[in-house]
Amino acid sequence: MIILLICFESNSQVTAKEDSITLRKIFDTALLEGMSYDWLDDLSNEIGSRLSGSYGAEQAVLYTQEKLNELGLDKVWLQPVMVPRWTRGVKEYAYIETAPGESTTTNVCALGGSVPTPYGGLKAEVVEVNGIEELAALGREKIEGKIVFYNRPMQANLINTFKAYGGCVGQRWAGAKEAANYGAVGVIVRSMTLSKDDFPHTGSMSYGDLDDHLKIPACAISTNGANYLSNTLKLQPKLKFYFNQSCKTHPDVQSYNVIGEIKGNVYPNKYILVGGHLDSWDLGDGSHDDGAGCVQSMEVLRILKKINYQPRYSIRVVLFMNEENGLRGGRKYAAEADKKNEEHIFALESDAGGFTPRGFSFDTNDEYFNTIKNWESLFEPYLIHQFYRGGSGADIGPLKKEGIILSGLRPDNQRYFDHHHSDNDTFDAINKRELELGGAAMTGLIYMIDKYID
Amino acid sequence: MIILLICFESNSQVTAKEDSITLRKIFDTALLEGMSYDWLDDLSNEIGSRLSGSYGAEQAVLYTQEKLNELGLDKVWLQPVMVPRWTRGVKEYAYIETAPGESTTTNVCALGGSVPTPYGGLKAEVVEVNGIEELAALGREKIEGKIVFYNRPMQANLINTFKAYGGCVGQRWAGAKEAANYGAVGVIVRSMTLSKDDFPHTGSMSYGDLDDHLKIPACAISTNGANYLSNTLKLQPKLKFYFNQSCKTHPDVQSYNVIGEIKGNVYPNKYILVGGHLDSWDLGDGSHDDGAGCVQSMEVLRILKKINYQPRYSIRVVLFMNEENGLRGGRKYAAEADKKNEEHIFALESDAGGFTPRGFSFDTNDEYFNTIKNWESLFEPYLIHQFYRGGSGADIGPLKKEGIILSGLRPDNQRYFDHHHSDNDTFDAINKRELELGGAAMTGLIYMIDKYID
Repeated sequence: MIILLICFESNSQVTAKEDSITLRKIFDTALLEGMSYDWLDDLSNEIGSRLSGSYGAEQAVLYTQEKLNELGLDKVWLQPVMVPRWTRGVKEYAYIETAPGESTTTNVCALGGSVPTPYGGLKAEVVEVNGIEELAALGREKIEGKIVFYNRPMQANLINTFKAYGGCVGQRWAGAKEAANYGAVGVIVRSMTLSKDDFPHTGSMSYGDLDDHLKIPACAISTNGANYLSNTLKLQPKLKFYFNQSCKTHPDVQSYNVIGEIKGNVYPNKYILVGGHLDSWDLGDGSHDDGAGCVQSMEVLRILKKINYQPRYSIRVVLFMNEENGLRGGRKYAAEADKKNEEHIFALESDAGGFTPRGFSFDTNDEYFNTIKNWESLFEPYLIHQFYRGGSGADIGPLKKEGIILSGLRPDNQRYFDHHHSDNDTFDAINKRELELGGAAMTGLIYMIDKYID
Repeated sequence: MIILLICFESNSQVTAKEDSITLRKIFDTALLEGMSYDWLDDLSNEIGSRLSGSYGAEQAVLYTQEKLNELGLDKVWLQPVMVPRWTRGVKEYAYIETAPGESTTTNVCALGGSVPTPYGGLKAEVVEVNGIEELAALGREKIEGKIVFYNRPMQANLINTFKAYGGCVGQRWAGAKEAANYGAVGVIVRSMTLSKDDFPHTGSMSYGDLDDHLKIPACAISTNGANYLSNTLKLQPKLKFYFNQSCKTHPDVQSYNVIGEIKGNVYPNKYILVGGHLDSWDLGDGSHDDGAGCVQSMEVLRILKKINYQPRYSIRVVLFMNEENGLRGGRKYAAEADKKNEEHIFALESDAGGFTPRGFSFDTNDEYFNTIKNWESLFEPYLIHQFYRGGSGADIGPLKKEGIILSGLRPDNQRYFDHHHSDNDTFDAINKRELELGGAAMTGLIYMIDKYID
């Protein structure tokens, strides 16, 4: 007797099964033979920090270009871009002086873009505020000749630490400029972290349109230092704060975005982009910010090649230069794409740390978002299925226009600011599996976009 | 003109709003004035490891009893339980000898419950297998007089690391007994971790009904050591492995479960339980396994008191003794509850590490599960909203019966086995916010259970 088993499956069921098999293959490739962790080891431990214009940044350009070349992509090239060059100089030094001869050293670092202190350092009384908006009430009378100490902490009861960061980063960005307007001679900014530790966290600042002779030096103080300073000020309001920093802004220098491409076989002149930023701050080694995003993006193209996926669109990995203090790479890339009429249908950035990925945020129209939202169940077995509307990434922001889909990888963010922009952002804080899950999820999303978005 | 704004809200909307306000209050209390991190600091750094029957375990009983007393609960007490006592003795020593006089030391630790090596240590040839099921094919002929080396690795492409653990923990638990049956003189087990490092990971093992004189010593080797041994065996199959361990099983000793209770104001004789296990292995300080679960459970009762919540049911925190090598505490608690006819409607255990919580698993009937599943949206703002069917925790397992709801906190598990049962399970691997989010989520769930489950 012959029994015929006939299975009826709809086209969409067959396709869904195919997609789920491909995703499984992608995750297996990432977790069983991933390269991102080894690349990040090199980038972090062989090269180290990669501030725009530094030798580290230059080495990182050459290293990633070489690694992309090894992947056998259709094309790998460097896109020239002029970038700012700011150097920290000798290690900063600071102390709190409660009486002549009685002082306690404390950990500070110059904010990126700050001017140096006068030769020999700067010593002055301190006025503590909880944010820029408190300056007006104090007025010039209480600020002139003093150092303004911005001590607004990140709000610990916000679940999303990026929101907590957003709530006080303004004092870092514009604090010096605003305080200078009231005659302050310097500013100290509480480090942007929820952790209580001794690491000062740097980050970019701006003097806006302030004349050069009005610019005042700005430094970050560790959270432990900030708490100590604040408590000591209550006991001794006349204490003086001393800091010495020799940072300097130099003329712009030549640098590069690093780009690799797999040619699409249907729409070779339309592009899907995945990237992170290759530059980092000069403290730590930039493993989470954003070495992780770079190696995950490189891994996307490696995995697609490895599983022999032939994309319909051309797929580019872009390692942007100068996200941290200028965004020149992102702007340059978008300007060039515009000039060459390169239509980008999708751009994805990973720049929120190498932690366990939980989903993606999307900045696009309703139609695209609803289509993509339907794919959540495909990513659920990997627990990376929170697809929601939100921002994407700074570097891909300049690509924004009607009809493009911008997206950001969204990892668990509880630990991110413990490391961000500090000596504490190092390779040992990276977990191999967490990093690999991110690269795999990014590859899966790009596979789906390439296959279904028209 | 007077404008009357009349809002119509259904009862269920009002209740949902009330619940969401209470949850917010719970999370604020945990994140802004949490105690769990400080308690864990004491437990990990002042007391350290807490193997059943050790002085550390005894100190932990006294410490947590004192802290529960400080919370002003209605009742705090110790529940006596006899526990096994196994001691590691002097630090283990092992080497791989490729030729007489040519050897490389490697890191091992005795498995919990193992017998010691003969005086002076044990040296023998090695036969490598990928799991217990390979022994039969080798037979007594190839095993007798040798050390069996179980080298099955955890499967890296499984997303859930607990599943990967489950896939090879059998060789640790029963490997010695099975190998002894073929005349092996000892066993080495690859450490249960996905990380490549030098930490050997201990854990419980059993000789089953094997006669004392047939018991053979068993140790764990670090993953780096296992890879080295395996590679060296390929070059030199006749190499010898030496190890020396002086561990010992002593008579049972008196210990305790630590219990605290808030009396219910409607059903004082029905119970909701939350707990973790106070004992740990003797390596590291047991911060993740399971100091974290203990302090999170204590935090649940602290937060409920702090927000002045009057529970309908009596709520108990139970810090169980001896989960790791006997489960005596869990069994004793369930037996006593049974004897006293204490009806438990819900029991929640946190024993999967102090990492970012992602949801809860539930072991209960359809009706309860469907009710609870409806609460997911309430936990979504905290990203702790994956409620699914699954196991709960070893200590609360003995409470299982018709009509009870058992549940386990489910944190991110990517890093868990990097630390589990090794020198690497230490307080510095704990993130304050991640720990606190777990305690808050547990409090929120217990609040909902208390309010809505009848």
